[in-house]
Amino acid sequence: MAITKSKIDYKLYLVTDRDVLGSRDLVQSVEEAIKGGTTIVQIREKNCSSLDFYKIAMQVKEVTSKYNVPLIINDRLDIALAIKADGLHIGQEDLPLTVARKIVGEDMIIGVSASTLEEAMIAQEQGADYVGIGSVYPTSTKLDAKYLAPDELRRIREAVKIPIVGIGGINEKNVSELMETNIDGVAIVSAILGKEDIRSAAEHLSMLVNK
Amino acid sequence: MAITKSKIDYKLYLVTDRDVLGSRDLVQSVEEAIKGGTTIVQIREKNCSSLDFYKIAMQVKEVTSKYNVPLIINDRLDIALAIKADGLHIGQEDLPLTVARKIVGEDMIIGVSASTLEEAMIAQEQGADYVGIGSVYPTSTKLDAKYLAPDELRRIREAVKIPIVGIGGINEKNVSELMETNIDGVAIVSAILGKEDIRSAAEHLSMLVNK
Ligand code: NI
Repeated sequence: MAITKSKIDYKLYLVTDRDVLGSRDLVQSVEEAIKGGTTIVQIREKNCSSLDFYKIAMQVKEVTSKYNVPLIINDRLDIALAIKADGLHIGQEDLPLTVARKIVGEDMIIGVSASTLEEAMIAQEQGADYVGIGSVYPTSTKLDAKYLAPDELRRIREAVKIPIVGIGGINEKNVSELMETNIDGVAIVSAILGKEDIRSAAEHLSMLVNK
Repeated sequence: MAITKSKIDYKLYLVTDRDVLGSRDLVQSVEEAIKGGTTIVQIREKNCSSLDFYKIAMQVKEVTSKYNVPLIINDRLDIALAIKADGLHIGQEDLPLTVARKIVGEDMIIGVSASTLEEAMIAQEQGADYVGIGSVYPTSTKLDAKYLAPDELRRIREAVKIPIVGIGGINEKNVSELMETNIDGVAIVSAILGKEDIRSAAEHLSMLVNK
């Protein structure tokens, strides 16, 4: 993959969730979202065998490669290596960043989830390429997520130099006020994949984040 | 780790299962099993975060290193790399062997689960270091496992040159007749970790497999 880290556009960051999709095809849905303006894709799979995760990721990679959109794998460093993904996203319950970095080297993007300024600063110091900060709004897709105070997001934006992606409960109604905090992008699940017309949902959000 | 593949003793192969242990400590239990004669240890974790798996595996590795017993990680290639395990064990629903081998290289042991002669032959051709064949007896720890006919195990033993470890429902009552098939070792879960005195259960099985 010829993705240059410094040129990555985090603005409209799609995170997959097959529960939200219901019976619709994941690969086709990702393609629709990319046609609508998604700039980066993260595959998140839970309770799925390693083989299934690998197969799904290979299929999604065909689509992201076709559109030259970076592909990030959630949690599973082995899947990221196996499909030669552009990046790995790790949460606070995943492999430690320093351990992951030693294995994947400097070329792979590593993003880290953080819900406090302290976690974000540690991730930056340890060499994260970006941080996902959230939840910025209440969310139904991650029921255990804590809800971040708006002031905390501004403090993080002032303190952290690496790209920041807001995550959690972001939709077309709140995305504009969120972008005013000068974050680099928004991670979206339901507000794209939960819509009947995935492409037009992405188009609308793309317009709002690029205003 | 300075484990030489050709010198690995598969005779008494412990596979961990925290459900079987109940409230007892995994690391201490593994140490007891090693003191009783366990020759190789596989950590199998399901439904546990990557961080927890990593931490547990690091702790178990301290024990296996102390006794110079090889440590194998089930399914999760990333955890195997992160803790510099001696090996990785993959099932038919895990990453494909050829994909895993490219990532970990030749030094890491890769074992593959097989339930038929065909699967075992494919694993051997693709460079598996050993095959785990089962279930050889009915088992309660893996409810979906199919039960292998004794003749099938003999056919596999005749056809396959790499080490064979029998798995599934093996205990002190059936282990002696099983070793008569000339397999290289037996993988044990409950018949060691499910016993009150783990060390003496391992000692008894060790005596039986070495007869
Ligand atoms: Ni006895």
